[in-house]
Amino acid sequence: SEHGQEGNDDDYGVYVATAKSIYMVSDGTGWTAEHSVSAALGQFDHCLVDRGCPVNTHLFSGIDDAEKLMAIIKQAAKEGAMVVYTLADPSMAESAKQACKLWGIPSTDILGPITEAIASHLGVSPSGLPRGASGRSSALSEEYFRRIEAVEFTIKHDDGALPQSLHKANIILAGVSRTGKTPLSIYLSQKGYKVANVPIVMGVDLPKTLFEVDPEKVFGLTINPIVLQTIRKARAKSLGFSGEARSSYSEMDYVRQELEFARRIFSQNPVWPVIEVTGKAIEETAAVILRLYHDRKHKCTMPRISKRY
Amino acid sequence: SEHGQEGNDDDYGVYVATAKSIYMVSDGTGWTAEHSVSAALGQFDHCLVDRGCPVNTHLFSGIDDAEKLMAIIKQAAKEGAMVVYTLADPSMAESAKQACKLWGIPSTDILGPITEAIASHLGVSPSGLPRGASGRSSALSEEYFRRIEAVEFTIKHDDGALPQSLHKANIILAGVSRTGKTPLSIYLSQKGYKVANVPIVMGVDLPKTLFEVDPEKVFGLTINPIVLQTIRKARAKSLGFSGEARSSYSEMDYVRQELEFARRIFSQNPVWPVIEVTGKAIEETAAVILRLYHDRKHKCTMPRISKRY
Ligand SMILES: Nc1ncnc2c1ncn2[C@@H]1O[C@H](COP(=O)(O)O)[C@@H](O)[C@H]1O
Ligand SMILES: Nc1ncnc2c1ncn2[C@@H]1O[C@H](COP(=O)(O)O)[C@@H](O)[C@H]1O
Ligand SMILES: [Mg+2]
Ligand SMILES: [Mg+2]
Repeated sequence: SEHGQEGNDDDYGVYVATAKSIYMVSDGTGWTAEHSVSAALGQFDHCLVDRGCPVNTHLFSGIDDAEKLMAIIKQAAKEGAMVVYTLADPSMAESAKQACKLWGIPSTDILGPITEAIASHLGVSPSGLPRGASGRSSALSEEYFRRIEAVEFTIKHDDGALPQSLHKANIILAGVSRTGKTPLSIYLSQKGYKVANVPIVMGVDLPKTLFEVDPEKVFGLTINPIVLQTIRKARAKSLGFSGEARSSYSEMDYVRQELEFARRIFSQNPVWPVIEVTGKAIEETAAVILRLYHDRKHKCTMPRISKRY
Repeated sequence: SEHGQEGNDDDYGVYVATAKSIYMVSDGTGWTAEHSVSAALGQFDHCLVDRGCPVNTHLFSGIDDAEKLMAIIKQAAKEGAMVVYTLADPSMAESAKQACKLWGIPSTDILGPITEAIASHLGVSPSGLPRGASGRSSALSEEYFRRIEAVEFTIKHDDGALPQSLHKANIILAGVSRTGKTPLSIYLSQKGYKVANVPIVMGVDLPKTLFEVDPEKVFGLTINPIVLQTIRKARAKSLGFSGEARSSYSEMDYVRQELEFARRIFSQNPVWPVIEVTGKAIEETAAVILRLYHDRKHKCTMPRISKRY
């Protein structure tokens, strides 16, 4: 990770010799290349860092002229790196391809193939203009404002805050402490959903508005007690809890009882789906929730999430 | 967008005839396919919705068996959709390819080519296991906790809150109201950075801790006054501001003076880079900030963001 590495600059030289490098080059932000490479690297989990086959990725964003591009490709050649790129201008993409070929560097055009396939599907040529170059102010679109509003709503409705406006949320998450409600809410909000999250704490009444809203938008989160205890112990340590507070929060009996308390609430509200979060990454739980959310909304025969562009 | 569409189900049938469909199929969350397709569609801005050539995307996630896969591909054939997929199991990917070929559907394998290129670069075969299947509990990794901590830190340090712990932030954003500090902070936090944001309000002193922290981690945000006024007018309306409050907040004179006030603060702190956000999407501003942040940290000759996997 970036930070791990930063804290570690002195050791860095030692690893360079053994780690393989992947250069990612974009005329835009580089996030598409990063996302794709990161997913693809999921296929090599069995050999990455812990198993002694580390990979270093290097992201070069905003590369909008041939000179910078060539300098990066030369550097890749020196380091024995492979190159992946997303370049909207066809002549830039062609230059990248040719230069890599010339210097014997393995290279992959990440978006070229999809862009071509879409072009022929639509019967329209791609603009060839990198992001930002078209002068189209995406930053003032309705979609843009809607997302910002969703993020702001979600921050304000974190951790049970403002229960009086729960009805304004698109999605409400309920679960005991450390089931990932906050990061999950934030992740969903960035996709444009207004999310509120409500903590379930043993012996504490839930806000009555939670039972007045459309139950189809409430999702319960549950987790394996042993995993939850591990997470809570780490949490209590990092917050510096001590004595009484710490022990009850992460004590196995307490953890089990609190999960049981949550389970009873969920079973009293059978419309709420209960989502198992154990071992899932935030984006994985988000995918499960949005799949259910859209299926309920659209009730179409084949579960899907649809968008208009 | 999802929500636009939801509010609009009655009209939806009307559009189906003219809109072209893209089916996205994943054995995981589908976010990689969605991200790639969305970037590729950026190349067709000149013909999307507003210009009368709408595209509907349909995301099918968690598709982990051949039966579901075939049902989706058949449906794509009926709708005249194209299909893009990310399927880790090589036999699933091959089935998708063959079925599309058989039914004359254009199809693109989004991650296959990068995965193969990485495999030959590393000299290691891909696992062929979809996300989640490997049983590796990514949810308990250090990286995972670090990101969650970053998101929670960032929420707590929104809008000038907790100025006494500004020194704990990795990145501090300062700017007048509606320069995008909050969504930008959240976006960066999800990449693992602890971000605090501090509002600049004319006539209000900034927290003195802002001038005590390492100035290399502070970023000023600036924006074109006319664009800012437009955004503030929309904001004032949506918040229901009226009379005095509304007029001073979005009055052109006030907007200009407040930006000038910010400009003076920035010029008194010349180490802070000043980032122009006009017309930029959040992820674009984030890319600019992280590029500067990493260049300053690493001071390497070629600007890049590096990560270890
Ligand atoms: N809205 C957009 N308009 C035009 N091109 C885009 C857009 N979004 C992304 N791209 C292009 O898609 C590729 C990936 O973008 P990025 O994720 O910003 O690196 C780059 O070549 C960008 O120029
Ligand atoms: N951590 C991971 N381990 C294994 N495969 C992954 C991982 N992350 C993503 N993938 C695969 O990459 C593709 C895209 O993932 P997703 O973005 O979840 O749809 C799917 O085929 C996933 O199975
Ligand atoms: Mg929380
Ligand atoms: Mg704000």
